[in-house]
Amino acid sequence: MKRLLVIGIGAGDPDHLTLQGAKAIGVADVFFLVDKGEAKQELVRLRQDLIDAHGRGTYRVVEARDPERDRSASAYAEAVEDWRSRRSQVFEQLIRDELRDGETGAFLVWGDPGVYDSTLAILEEVLDRGQVTFDYQVIPGISSIAALTAAHRTSLTRVARPVHLTTGRRLAEEGLTADDVVVMLDAHCSFAGLGPDVHIHWGAYLGTPDEILVSGPVPEVADRIRDLRSQAREDKGWIMDTYLLRRTPPPADPGA
Amino acid sequence: MKRLLVIGIGAGDPDHLTLQGAKAIGVADVFFLVDKGEAKQELVRLRQDLIDAHGRGTYRVVEARDPERDRSASAYAEAVEDWRSRRSQVFEQLIRDELRDGETGAFLVWGDPGVYDSTLAILEEVLDRGQVTFDYQVIPGISSIAALTAAHRTSLTRVARPVHLTTGRRLAEEGLTADDVVVMLDAHCSFAGLGPDVHIHWGAYLGTPDEILVSGPVPEVADRIRDLRSQAREDKGWIMDTYLLRRTPPPADPGA
Repeated sequence: MKRLLVIGIGAGDPDHLTLQGAKAIGVADVFFLVDKGEAKQELVRLRQDLIDAHGRGTYRVVEARDPERDRSASAYAEAVEDWRSRRSQVFEQLIRDELRDGETGAFLVWGDPGVYDSTLAILEEVLDRGQVTFDYQVIPGISSIAALTAAHRTSLTRVARPVHLTTGRRLAEEGLTADDVVVMLDAHCSFAGLGPDVHIHWGAYLGTPDEILVSGPVPEVADRIRDLRSQAREDKGWIMDTYLLRRTPPPADPGA
Repeated sequence: MKRLLVIGIGAGDPDHLTLQGAKAIGVADVFFLVDKGEAKQELVRLRQDLIDAHGRGTYRVVEARDPERDRSASAYAEAVEDWRSRRSQVFEQLIRDELRDGETGAFLVWGDPGVYDSTLAILEEVLDRGQVTFDYQVIPGISSIAALTAAHRTSLTRVARPVHLTTGRRLAEEGLTADDVVVMLDAHCSFAGLGPDVHIHWGAYLGTPDEILVSGPVPEVADRIRDLRSQAREDKGWIMDTYLLRRTPPPADPGA
């Protein structure tokens, strides 16, 4: 039987890795790095650093190219599904050709494998096709949400209150659906129109030496976030950011 | 200046600790353990094990008793606020009397300090009173949510869709507010009335040798979860559990 480990490596700080994650890296025979080629070299390097630090004496690293994703498509979910499907062909080939029976392969996933990452869905798709068989285990990681709230020294949750986790597209379409909303995957600063009763805790490159944090009432900091964001994106060639929106109830509200 | 570290230690597995968390334990002069006395001795022991494993040669451990919480109060949020306020007096006294200037104190927090934990709010309350001054840093941890989804090898999120994080009380009052809902702090199995289109991924004692996992359509597994839960709670004297509810859209829905 072939065995796969899907290892959450945290949001950017190599010390976000858990002891469980370090041990998992230490038992892997093969690391699969599936990337978009030239982009985000720093991220590839950080992954390689983790393998160097925690891998055992001998292991193989197999790199593969991500299929291109149609970012112009208006139907976002369908475009992602299509990309996933083509990506699953790449994964299937890797598992079939590059991992022997009895060996353990590893995928190193940014943040937590359960939070807006496609690896688990892709592995299930590969299993469903039935061309290769394997067992797999998931190692949880520090998500960018946990890294964000820790960096801002704020709690994700308030007592007895819900939190919504959503995407930039949905925030733009639906507005604030709760008093506490975490937004991921927002390339368009969809928070910009919110009022002074909404506080934003924004962070980019969380856990890395380039970490940028801004917080304050949205109207006071929206322009600064937008400028920082576009400047950083230009300087580095990529950006990963996320934010928490928190609506403050009016002071007179005794139910708050 | 006094310095405090709020360290997320993960959901129950000692290997959930991050390298950052291990290093933070290694620099602390004083560990503050605030507990409810007799209860949850296993949890206290696991924390002590982490200190033994990662603490430096000399450190102090200061134990304090949690104030009692009024669990009969109908106004849940107010009861928690009142308990927090009394708890903050305990914290203030610890920081004032048991931590010297220039020293580093540590609080070890289950899961992630940002997810339904009171430590950060209490420290802010202590700072607001102005009787003691200190600086503090938050170390993110593996939340029970990440531990749950990893154990079930499922993703918290689906493509382009939101996730709601809520409490058992709110689920009972409001029902399912999204197709993907994580419920914490539910002593009453508030999921029980949901229909066969809702799949539950339930877990207790996540990451520990006593971990229990059940998943399936709610009507098929609700009784089993309730029985397992009450039996385990009786056997061990305490339980920590959480679950993800996932509504499957009808097969004909092309937008899903």
